[in-house]
Amino acid sequence: TGSHLAEADSQTEWTDVQKKIIPWKNSTPSLDLETAFQDRAAKLGKSNSRLIVVASLIDKPTNLGGLCRTSEIFGASALVVGSLHYIQDKQFQHLSVSAEQWLPLVEVKPSQLVDYLQQKKTEGYTIIGVEQTAKSFDLTEYCFPEKSLLLLGNEHEGIPANLIHHLDVCVEIPQQGIIRSLNVHVSGALLIWEYTRQQVIKQKQQQ
Amino acid sequence: TGSHLAEADSQTEWTDVQKKIIPWKNSTPSLDLETAFQDRAAKLGKSNSRLIVVASLIDKPTNLGGLCRTSEIFGASALVVGSLHYIQDKQFQHLSVSAEQWLPLVEVKPSQLVDYLQQKKTEGYTIIGVEQTAKSFDLTEYCFPEKSLLLLGNEHEGIPANLIHHLDVCVEIPQQGIIRSLNVHVSGALLIWEYTRQQVIKQKQQQ
Repeated sequence: TGSHLAEADSQTEWTDVQKKIIPWKNSTPSLDLETAFQDRAAKLGKSNSRLIVVASLIDKPTNLGGLCRTSEIFGASALVVGSLHYIQDKQFQHLSVSAEQWLPLVEVKPSQLVDYLQQKKTEGYTIIGVEQTAKSFDLTEYCFPEKSLLLLGNEHEGIPANLIHHLDVCVEIPQQGIIRSLNVHVSGALLIWEYTRQQVIKQKQQQ
Repeated sequence: TGSHLAEADSQTEWTDVQKKIIPWKNSTPSLDLETAFQDRAAKLGKSNSRLIVVASLIDKPTNLGGLCRTSEIFGASALVVGSLHYIQDKQFQHLSVSAEQWLPLVEVKPSQLVDYLQQKKTEGYTIIGVEQTAKSFDLTEYCFPEKSLLLLGNEHEGIPANLIHHLDVCVEIPQQGIIRSLNVHVSGALLIWEYTRQQVIKQKQQQ
């Protein structure tokens, strides 16, 4: 796909996009960057979903790099990270295999998450926590809305209590093993896949 | 679950199982070990599926360790690796979080794979390659048989041509991104999940 990329680069005003990061709350430049990303994706024949993956609580660069690769491949509209610095990390880069060049990354610090989630709710997103709680839906039974925002928990502490009641719903992955839980990148990948699978099936039914 | 484990250990002849590896083709001891594993799992209330995950072509200890964790959590009946040595690797252990103690690991070298796949066919398993080919089924459309064997490809070369025509079917994950392909641990995890999801739904329909 080398020539494909070269063509897109020549057609797009690319200087801003190469910063790769959309600063949240800087409304005008942020919108420009999002538009530029979407234009570039469209020119490459890439379809973007209405899925936002929020990884601000995740600490390990390997998990973030892996999530970046997986989110890009399934056409998520953005990956939200807790800090811009992660994309300079060699482990992040090793796992992301340069996916960060094709996926909008947004920086939202953990302390800004409540505000960010509230804003996305007003934009029509359903806020979905990936967490085991007494009221969680089983992933085999949950039907994802088109505008879905996935909040992934920290590797050790999951989603803190003060954020749980800002969620619209929690979804958990049914697990049969002795080992307690899946790696957070894998958990995220399974929900991203399940969202994608349901969207594909809906689109086929509408044809 | 500490007391849970202690109870199981006291009830099971555990010396053999702690070797953790079932040597393929040593029929009698192999069967004993498989039975001991299943007994132990049953005592812990763990349900095992009829899913075998074959990772003999995979080179990276991180991918194998991750697959070990994910396979254990979804109750796969075994993980097949190309060499016993991987479980001594620190990166494997870091990623597996000790799942190898709860999941039968079987050693089948890449050179033995054709024989192994043939034997599993005679045992009623459907041999499923995770690979993009002209005839691959889309994962959103494939219905997994109860006795499924997943063959995962090498990180760089995928599944070699000489093995492709020993498969019953290929399944591929529809991908929308610019980045070429998913990490092999993630690909494996998505198929393990999809198998599990379908089994859960079948079991609910039968109730």
